[in-house]
Amino acid sequence: MKGIKNNNWRTKLHDIIYEADTPIGKLFDIILLALILLSVIFVMIETIRGLPGWAYDLLYYGEWVITIFFTFEYIARIVTVKKPSKYIFSFYGIIDFLSTIPLYISFILAGSNVLLAVRALRLLRVFRILKITRYIGESNKLTKALKDSRPKIFVFLFAVLIISIIAGTLMYLIEGEESGFKSIPVSVYWCIVTLTTVGFGDIAPVTPLGQLLAAIIMIMGYGIIAVPTGIVSAEYTKAGKPLQKDDPEYVHVNSQVCYHCGAAKHRDDAEFCHKCGNSLFEQEDETSG
Amino acid sequence: MKGIKNNNWRTKLHDIIYEADTPIGKLFDIILLALILLSVIFVMIETIRGLPGWAYDLLYYGEWVITIFFTFEYIARIVTVKKPSKYIFSFYGIIDFLSTIPLYISFILAGSNVLLAVRALRLLRVFRILKITRYIGESNKLTKALKDSRPKIFVFLFAVLIISIIAGTLMYLIEGEESGFKSIPVSVYWCIVTLTTVGFGDIAPVTPLGQLLAAIIMIMGYGIIAVPTGIVSAEYTKAGKPLQKDDPEYVHVNSQVCYHCGAAKHRDDAEFCHKCGNSLFEQEDETSG
Amino acid sequence: MKGIKNNNWRTKLHDIIYEADTPIGKLFDIILLALILLSVIFVMIETIRGLPGWAYDLLYYGEWVITIFFTFEYIARIVTVKKPSKYIFSFYGIIDFLSTIPLYISFILAGSNVLLAVRALRLLRVFRILKITRYIGESNKLTKALKDSRPKIFVFLFAVLIISIIAGTLMYLIEGEESGFKSIPVSVYWCIVTLTTVGFGDIAPVTPLGQLLAAIIMIMGYGIIAVPTGIVSAEYTKAGKPLQKDDPEYVHVNSQVCYHCGAAKHRDDAEFCHKCGNSLFEQEDETSG
Amino acid sequence: MKGIKNNNWRTKLHDIIYEADTPIGKLFDIILLALILLSVIFVMIETIRGLPGWAYDLLYYGEWVITIFFTFEYIARIVTVKKPSKYIFSFYGIIDFLSTIPLYISFILAGSNVLLAVRALRLLRVFRILKITRYIGESNKLTKALKDSRPKIFVFLFAVLIISIIAGTLMYLIEGEESGFKSIPVSVYWCIVTLTTVGFGDIAPVTPLGQLLAAIIMIMGYGIIAVPTGIVSAEYTKAGKPLQKDDPEYVHVNSQVCYHCGAAKHRDDAEFCHKCGNSLFEQEDETSG
Repeated sequence: MKGIKNNNWRTKLHDIIYEADTPIGKLFDIILLALILLSVIFVMIETIRGLPGWAYDLLYYGEWVITIFFTFEYIARIVTVKKPSKYIFSFYGIIDFLSTIPLYISFILAGSNVLLAVRALRLLRVFRILKITRYIGESNKLTKALKDSRPKIFVFLFAVLIISIIAGTLMYLIEGEESGFKSIPVSVYWCIVTLTTVGFGDIAPVTPLGQLLAAIIMIMGYGIIAVPTGIVSAEYTKAGKPLQKDDPEYVHVNSQVCYHCGAAKHRDDAEFCHKCGNSLFEQEDETSG
Repeated sequence: MKGIKNNNWRTKLHDIIYEADTPIGKLFDIILLALILLSVIFVMIETIRGLPGWAYDLLYYGEWVITIFFTFEYIARIVTVKKPSKYIFSFYGIIDFLSTIPLYISFILAGSNVLLAVRALRLLRVFRILKITRYIGESNKLTKALKDSRPKIFVFLFAVLIISIIAGTLMYLIEGEESGFKSIPVSVYWCIVTLTTVGFGDIAPVTPLGQLLAAIIMIMGYGIIAVPTGIVSAEYTKAGKPLQKDDPEYVHVNSQVCYHCGAAKHRDDAEFCHKCGNSLFEQEDETSG
Repeated sequence: MKGIKNNNWRTKLHDIIYEADTPIGKLFDIILLALILLSVIFVMIETIRGLPGWAYDLLYYGEWVITIFFTFEYIARIVTVKKPSKYIFSFYGIIDFLSTIPLYISFILAGSNVLLAVRALRLLRVFRILKITRYIGESNKLTKALKDSRPKIFVFLFAVLIISIIAGTLMYLIEGEESGFKSIPVSVYWCIVTLTTVGFGDIAPVTPLGQLLAAIIMIMGYGIIAVPTGIVSAEYTKAGKPLQKDDPEYVHVNSQVCYHCGAAKHRDDAEFCHKCGNSLFEQEDETSG
Repeated sequence: MKGIKNNNWRTKLHDIIYEADTPIGKLFDIILLALILLSVIFVMIETIRGLPGWAYDLLYYGEWVITIFFTFEYIARIVTVKKPSKYIFSFYGIIDFLSTIPLYISFILAGSNVLLAVRALRLLRVFRILKITRYIGESNKLTKALKDSRPKIFVFLFAVLIISIIAGTLMYLIEGEESGFKSIPVSVYWCIVTLTTVGFGDIAPVTPLGQLLAAIIMIMGYGIIAVPTGIVSAEYTKAGKPLQKDDPEYVHVNSQVCYHCGAAKHRDDAEFCHKCGNSLFEQEDETSG
């Protein structure tokens, strides 16, 4: 009896934590989402220097509240799942563990504050919750377009990398170390900065020849940006075409013609003519009979 | 009699101020548009240091002329409108008030010059006038494309933000405070600067690992820019097509529900329910009768 | 007799200078194109400091040779054209004059070297020559797409400007003069630099609030870039559609039906049915007869 | 006998080196690809200052192993190919030679370390191997779209260059040498940096007029980027459509020529010439008979 009761209790908790169909399940997801976002904001603010003392205290206690909640949630997840080992070593299991543990470690080992930034990984937990919300639904078409574009974008990125390495080597030879092109990897880094039109300006060519090559790289980068855009644009247009059927306003009509009044374009699932009200199937029987 | 006369006088003024159909109404709009633009230019120039004294004098007197005109206009708008309170607390009512008041406050309270920059908000008044011009007509298609793209662009911006926070945290851990990555919020700011290919260069990675991650962020940003472009491009192409109605498969359905069987999505020109064959109009009569 | 002879001589020269149909006319255009490009390169190199003395001498004498050639060409253009006054005050007439005169002025007036840079305007002369070459042919479709996009791009630019002015004013209020946002016009300039994703970094926000606003501006700019791209992309796709008729593989077929065998979709210039071999016109005569 | 045996040995080696159909041939390609990438990474790392001594030793010995492998490969390629001279002076022959020789030269001539960077050109060898892999297959459509866009992109780049030269000259005149616009070529370089939205910030306008012009250049650059994107997007969409056959106006014509009248471009299913009405098949029989 106790086992079954326990099971019931477990099943209920499982539904609350892992599913979002019930009102309590939804509430749990919203609270979790809020706590994750709050904790990420806490982690971010914590790194700011020069805040007043009470702010650090507030962040510290807030952090403990969130960590304790996450600890209970982590234990609950292990308890209610069928195969705990499978959950623990899954992607989200590891993320959950890494989201919870840093504060305990920093409490035991002084000076391990660097670990605290690991808590920003909590943001990845957001994806688990969002998976069950409607926002992902919006991005389906986008995901499809991106998935279809992947092989082409891979070829494109490979081309960008090869151009960067060759141009980076040339820039290293032309500009040399005085201009900031300290080594070929740094030159390649600069080339990527330039090709992608980011252009920090921490390293910039000084010699006329280097500036000429830089200008060529920039114009290439300017032209190259057209390629992924064109790809995604074309794939997206393509992906959008047959999806119109999923549109709530979309109704598929067929070429069937009513034998009584001749009206066409009936809905696929129509049983009666929308114009004269006679059965669409009776007429077919008469014809065949 | 006086009341009616007053009313006539009010109606006329109302037509001049709020409508642009009459020649005087158009002239009023053009003068108002010119004064707004002029006053915004005045506000901008005023902040430049090192102008000759007479320039400041000119700006000062010009500003008074415009403010007095705006004051009269504001009073006229209150007087001629039916429900003054509704106007005063409307978006444009508040903008109008904020456009007029700063100079008076700076006259009474010395040292409140910061308030004067609020006058730049006058620019928002331009939209009210432009609403009645033909330029907005041009942008209808654009607005439609943007409105249709909104949910996808929201998903996209959310993705950009999550990438920025995670990459920003990593950059903070890798580069540290010596390289200018002073805190996670600053790192996230830097990530947005880099992802959007702006690249100020006030903060730039120095360590090899940081530069490698920066290169990955840049190439991602370069690829990501293709997404909104593809979306808008596809939506815009779609928005430009009223052709879908010419599509042989296209039939417009409405939200009317059959009173007999509850079937929805009937063709616009349907007279009988396509599900149960009963008249769609008879049912309405029965309901109303 | 002399008048006619003179006329002949003039007509020939006119054909050489203004037209490119004859071999000599083509040769003249190519020489002129080469000299213009050479002279623009000369003007550019001249401004470089630290060249050896002989290089300046070479540029100086080269410049004189080109100027004398341009002088003769200018006189020849005036002499051979029917209405010299119309040419002199035309766009290209003024450009030609400005291309020729600076060296003479700098010869007479010492210290007027600034004027010499005006010679870079010679580059505009290239367009006259290119007008008669095939390259412009290539850009017809492009020009059409751009022309059709113009009103939309105007609305777009207007929106960019208004966003820049409002965001610039806000940045001026938030950051203030210490961060480099010296005046509202400078702030607006910085906003345009940021919105267009150029990002020089000579001015960059320092305060957290300023950086937040900057991040919002950047993401807006990143999204906004999608708009003109989508417009041009859609217009270009549209512009490219009816051009398929110029495709060498394209054959226009009509809806004419053969009266003998009923075959349809004959080529527009077909005289006989491609299915049964009977004349397409005879049948028409029979029908009409 | 020995000659034939030698030939067999050669043919086998030729198949291994030049083809990828056999398992050994594939293995050879993979090893070569790995060695090329490894050697390029070695060349890049080598230029980094401040590595520990053993790292330089490792790179040095690794470099010798790779160079010796490349030497044998180079000799093998010469030996097994039919016309060695044709290979040696081909593009890839020269690349192979330049990939192998630098280490030997630096061994003989001390101080010729600059030459070592030439080894980065080994990366170009990657293309030869990739030519026989499936990745290029993915990029066929991309290549087609780019090839079709070429003339338009050429016109576009020419326009960018002319805008840069004219705007660069104006910036030189407005800003002058104090602001970093040292000469017209440097100004033109800055214009390209700005137009392509790279924006290093090593040179930036300081005067109000210069900033105004810079803002105009940026907005132009922002608008111009739409052009190549639109072109590639449209071409790519076109390249992806074999749909044109569904077009009701589309009729496939072939290159068959009528033997009676010489008319070409008959419909694929044509039996009679559309010009003279004679059978298209009879004529073929007569010719063959």
